[in-house]
Amino acid sequence: MEFIHPDFMLTTDAARELYHDAAEGMPIIDYHCHLVPQQIAENIQFRDITQLWLVDGHYGDHYKWRQMRGNGVPEDYLTGGRKSSWETFEKWAETMPRLMRNPLYHWTQLELARVFGIYKILKPETAREIFEECNAKLATPEFRGQALIRKFGVEVVCTTDDPADDLRWHKQIARKPFGTKVLPAWRPDKAMAIENPKAYREYLQKLGEAAGKEIDSYADLLEALKIRHDFFASMGCKLSDHGLETFYAADYKQIEIELIFKKVLLGRKPSATELEKFRSAFMHDVAVMDAKSGWAQQFHVGAIRNNNSRMFESVGPDTGYDAIHDLPMAAAGHKFLDSLEREGELAKTILYCLNPKDNEVLATMAYTFNDGSFPGKMQFGAAWWFLDQEDGMRKQLNALSALGLLSRFVGMLTDSRSFISYPRHEYFRRILCDVLGRDIEDGKLPVSEMDTIKNMVRDICYDNAKNYFNF
Amino acid sequence: MEFIHPDFMLTTDAARELYHDAAEGMPIIDYHCHLVPQQIAENIQFRDITQLWLVDGHYGDHYKWRQMRGNGVPEDYLTGGRKSSWETFEKWAETMPRLMRNPLYHWTQLELARVFGIYKILKPETAREIFEECNAKLATPEFRGQALIRKFGVEVVCTTDDPADDLRWHKQIARKPFGTKVLPAWRPDKAMAIENPKAYREYLQKLGEAAGKEIDSYADLLEALKIRHDFFASMGCKLSDHGLETFYAADYKQIEIELIFKKVLLGRKPSATELEKFRSAFMHDVAVMDAKSGWAQQFHVGAIRNNNSRMFESVGPDTGYDAIHDLPMAAAGHKFLDSLEREGELAKTILYCLNPKDNEVLATMAYTFNDGSFPGKMQFGAAWWFLDQEDGMRKQLNALSALGLLSRFVGMLTDSRSFISYPRHEYFRRILCDVLGRDIEDGKLPVSEMDTIKNMVRDICYDNAKNYFNF
Amino acid sequence: MEFIHPDFMLTTDAARELYHDAAEGMPIIDYHCHLVPQQIAENIQFRDITQLWLVDGHYGDHYKWRQMRGNGVPEDYLTGGRKSSWETFEKWAETMPRLMRNPLYHWTQLELARVFGIYKILKPETAREIFEECNAKLATPEFRGQALIRKFGVEVVCTTDDPADDLRWHKQIARKPFGTKVLPAWRPDKAMAIENPKAYREYLQKLGEAAGKEIDSYADLLEALKIRHDFFASMGCKLSDHGLETFYAADYKQIEIELIFKKVLLGRKPSATELEKFRSAFMHDVAVMDAKSGWAQQFHVGAIRNNNSRMFESVGPDTGYDAIHDLPMAAAGHKFLDSLEREGELAKTILYCLNPKDNEVLATMAYTFNDGSFPGKMQFGAAWWFLDQEDGMRKQLNALSALGLLSRFVGMLTDSRSFISYPRHEYFRRILCDVLGRDIEDGKLPVSEMDTIKNMVRDICYDNAKNYFNF
Repeated sequence: MEFIHPDFMLTTDAARELYHDAAEGMPIIDYHCHLVPQQIAENIQFRDITQLWLVDGHYGDHYKWRQMRGNGVPEDYLTGGRKSSWETFEKWAETMPRLMRNPLYHWTQLELARVFGIYKILKPETAREIFEECNAKLATPEFRGQALIRKFGVEVVCTTDDPADDLRWHKQIARKPFGTKVLPAWRPDKAMAIENPKAYREYLQKLGEAAGKEIDSYADLLEALKIRHDFFASMGCKLSDHGLETFYAADYKQIEIELIFKKVLLGRKPSATELEKFRSAFMHDVAVMDAKSGWAQQFHVGAIRNNNSRMFESVGPDTGYDAIHDLPMAAAGHKFLDSLEREGELAKTILYCLNPKDNEVLATMAYTFNDGSFPGKMQFGAAWWFLDQEDGMRKQLNALSALGLLSRFVGMLTDSRSFISYPRHEYFRRILCDVLGRDIEDGKLPVSEMDTIKNMVRDICYDNAKNYFNF
Repeated sequence: MEFIHPDFMLTTDAARELYHDAAEGMPIIDYHCHLVPQQIAENIQFRDITQLWLVDGHYGDHYKWRQMRGNGVPEDYLTGGRKSSWETFEKWAETMPRLMRNPLYHWTQLELARVFGIYKILKPETAREIFEECNAKLATPEFRGQALIRKFGVEVVCTTDDPADDLRWHKQIARKPFGTKVLPAWRPDKAMAIENPKAYREYLQKLGEAAGKEIDSYADLLEALKIRHDFFASMGCKLSDHGLETFYAADYKQIEIELIFKKVLLGRKPSATELEKFRSAFMHDVAVMDAKSGWAQQFHVGAIRNNNSRMFESVGPDTGYDAIHDLPMAAAGHKFLDSLEREGELAKTILYCLNPKDNEVLATMAYTFNDGSFPGKMQFGAAWWFLDQEDGMRKQLNALSALGLLSRFVGMLTDSRSFISYPRHEYFRRILCDVLGRDIEDGKLPVSEMDTIKNMVRDICYDNAKNYFNF
Repeated sequence: MEFIHPDFMLTTDAARELYHDAAEGMPIIDYHCHLVPQQIAENIQFRDITQLWLVDGHYGDHYKWRQMRGNGVPEDYLTGGRKSSWETFEKWAETMPRLMRNPLYHWTQLELARVFGIYKILKPETAREIFEECNAKLATPEFRGQALIRKFGVEVVCTTDDPADDLRWHKQIARKPFGTKVLPAWRPDKAMAIENPKAYREYLQKLGEAAGKEIDSYADLLEALKIRHDFFASMGCKLSDHGLETFYAADYKQIEIELIFKKVLLGRKPSATELEKFRSAFMHDVAVMDAKSGWAQQFHVGAIRNNNSRMFESVGPDTGYDAIHDLPMAAAGHKFLDSLEREGELAKTILYCLNPKDNEVLATMAYTFNDGSFPGKMQFGAAWWFLDQEDGMRKQLNALSALGLLSRFVGMLTDSRSFISYPRHEYFRRILCDVLGRDIEDGKLPVSEMDTIKNMVRDICYDNAKNYFNF
């Protein structure tokens, strides 16, 4: 039997029934990813499997890089760009047998199977053959960017975009539709990043140009953002996203925020207290924008980034040097959400944590602000980034189940910049069905309610997200 | 087969043997709950299943409310009090199929089975029928408050009472016993709550009246509390309880505490440092009282409460707006217990956490202060509140097993204000037996020692609590 | 069937195959333990099983003491030293049936089986018989210290030594080899302990004498340490170890460190800020020494020690009064490692946590600093101390697998002062094989790659440590 066979990861009869009857055929709504709109618009043709999987000019798969470095692969093969496609791929193939029990092992074999129809195990002995078979297929039109997305039944993709972005590629895609809706999503992290005054002023310049408005004050900033927010909405945007170390909810006065803003405009670094106040004001004010526009908002909380400063200086952010943070988040998180709730400005919200110790904190935090206005309004989001693996998913599903309504979960997203990460939806669905199937076999869910359970699976795979985001 | 069948949750032969031979028949000692003494004394007759389960004037089941809000049920059906019993019940029945994998799903079906003999699954299709069957039964004498408690073989119930309480209802119950001992337990949280000077002064007034002593100083406060502590002891009280965000163990001088107290009496808010010092002094001093009286003390640590301020103002505390906190607790916890240990004033102690990340911290903290004077003197307590579910219980049992003596565990409590939450003891026992049974089947516990294992089960279900509290 | 039978803890066919084919026969490299070099050199003969297991003059097994105290055993039987060997052993035998699900239950039975060939369950009924059989065997040459170590195929033992230690016993062992290499390991914790100026000055005196150098400044301290570091290297030392509450990475100037050092030399206590700065400087500087010498460094992070001050004063450290801490460690940990990485002075590093909530933090922290120079350079270390049990090991293995390369793991160590704790390696190996075996049976690892999986097992049991430390 192939490793990736029809019942992969499904360890009970009930799990197999749930997966094949209810999960397998559902379309995908990928409501949060990092696909590059230009690559979609231009219907990218990949040079080879190394570009698609490992190294692509400035970009690459930092998940793989981290583990390759851990396996002793020198940087030359990765960000160094000094090796041929084959040389880099060979190092990856050498790393594969070392990856057993790491999610990359399953992801890689799933992608080979689902994208390329290859069921062999990738390892040094099979590397050359797989390299060539993949490359030959990538040279055909069926393996260009848009076809890859279509192959997985993706109805909607939400990219991640800066407020200053002109969304030209989204416009182009909209003009030449290919069957998957590609919508922008609003990620204003740079507009909050006053810790680096020089870079911040440059960013404000760009944002001001995009908004057609000079930004000389915090009030100006909010106005400019509102202009862009409306523009994003006009382009079909329905949700925002924020990457935070923790929540911010310091007390502040409006005048303080203006003074901090001026100070930064003058090129001076804010103090820790000023930073906290500014972030608190900013996060509140952009959250109000989302509420007023009827969007959903996402908070990705708990990463500590760019920890390897030598490598940050040499290869920049998002290259595999981030990690899991351990700041407290309960007090500020509740205060932040409460101030919005009081004002009637709390949008639909999805809370994601990167540290599994925060699963229960975020699950209860979310459910503390449900107001009965919409089923599942406040969501504890899917296992994120480092937690996007079997152990992480099971913990997220268990915490959500015990502390909230699994049945209302908006489910999986890829959070990926790869065109072929869609098997991660399949992977999630298999694990979800395995969790539920085990409960059924153990008599913890009533077998008499199998139809309800199947509907729950369909909801989590697709219908909940469809109703929640209303793209 | 019924969903709630004799072997519910028992997934191995060994688990079934343990449960039916050792656990099932044991009486219950419910050493910590929130039953309302007046309702017991008056032998409450419930109007209907909605009053019993969902809404009862000011009170109700905030566990259910949280999930109903999450399921999109408007507040009118809950605290709003604007809907009929049937309308509210119908909303609950609609929510039930959405609750799969949440403990409420199991609790509800267990309560239907054990209290009402109903084995149908509650859902919209069965709602009316179940509503009527329950209501008809609730109209009979066998379903009044005292009979409900007796039905579950409850030997002792400890309520949760304020030091200012006159315990009149406990007296009345004692005069007309019904087969279950109902004892008060001491919860002096309000006597520590100086953060709100106005409410605090009102409380001191009440407490002073109860103690027959004017309270003008911290020393007076302690004296008044001691008077009440002795009174509680005379009424059979054997244990205290404290709800804390974290432990408090700041250094302080007695004179500082007096000054803080005076300041609060003058209506001024204490600073954060003052609050910390006052709480540190207070917790130490009431802990000494427990030691001197030979009581056991309980610390419930790690809730963040009343986070939804709009709802707090409209419907008050304990209405489903609390959550799991993430403050550190190791340093202060050890310092607090150490100062008592040094003075020879460390009572039997049970530590409960609300954040599962603290399981291992509290388990090791407790065992750091065992002194050989009593088996299991220092306890890591049962999975509490949000953790009172299968995943939470398994984690608590595993942490306790690995870091201490599971065999000395005083076991389960309901912590509930409901007259029919006793199936939670059954639920706990089934999970306990399933954990042990799985170990036996996997060869991790010696099958040759089955009698010892069964005795361990009996101890955890009943005998340990009986010996520990000595009610 | 005996409780300790050939397939103990192995619950699948695949697990059994892995264990018996790949794990069982591998030698042991015990790269971190607390064996007393003098006892090895003198080839200690144990008076009886009580000395070996429970009480040995000043020392004893604080793991057992903790649980015995929890079981109500008075101190007289433990550190009190007022009871006979039999009386103390009898208390241990009484405690054993109370220890089910605690690792001591398995450890005890494994040690009886593997060291003494006794397969009976230890309990009051078997106590006398087992006591006598063990004692009779301990009187024979085959049960002296060196033979006990040899019995388990231990190739290398690394003890834990203070820089001021003259390593005379290591020299003596080297002169009369017995088949197991016994190497020193560098643990300079006392050289950082300025929080107690009096004890610190005494320590500096001792260290200065060992180094042949008076220590009047921080620069002197570093020089003295460097002299000893070189001496340790000349004695075969290849790794260091540090016991830390958390990581330290405050900003500091060299002159500040000198001033703090002078202040402490004058007998004055450093402030909290000074302590933090000093520790930050010290940890950085000793880490650089390790890098320059090509050693590996170990950080054991997250214990809170000597929490029971009364017992600390009466029986000293390491007597069972330590616990799991909950300080944050991500920010300082990354900053600490980053500063070393920038300077090119980051040695091979193993990070151990005591709080399982930190598993994911340390696993990602480690992998953030791999540089491709050596496979598995940065390690997330084995489950430590309180976590050295089945639940703790499974969590460590799962976190490492999901976030790094399980295949590159340097594996198990005993961290023990006992001559017969080597069955803990067997215990670890059984659990490792059970984890992998379950994955194979569930189709999560490809059965076609069984040879690779077996090699992975061999690597984790032995080969990785052999290549990593290069003793």
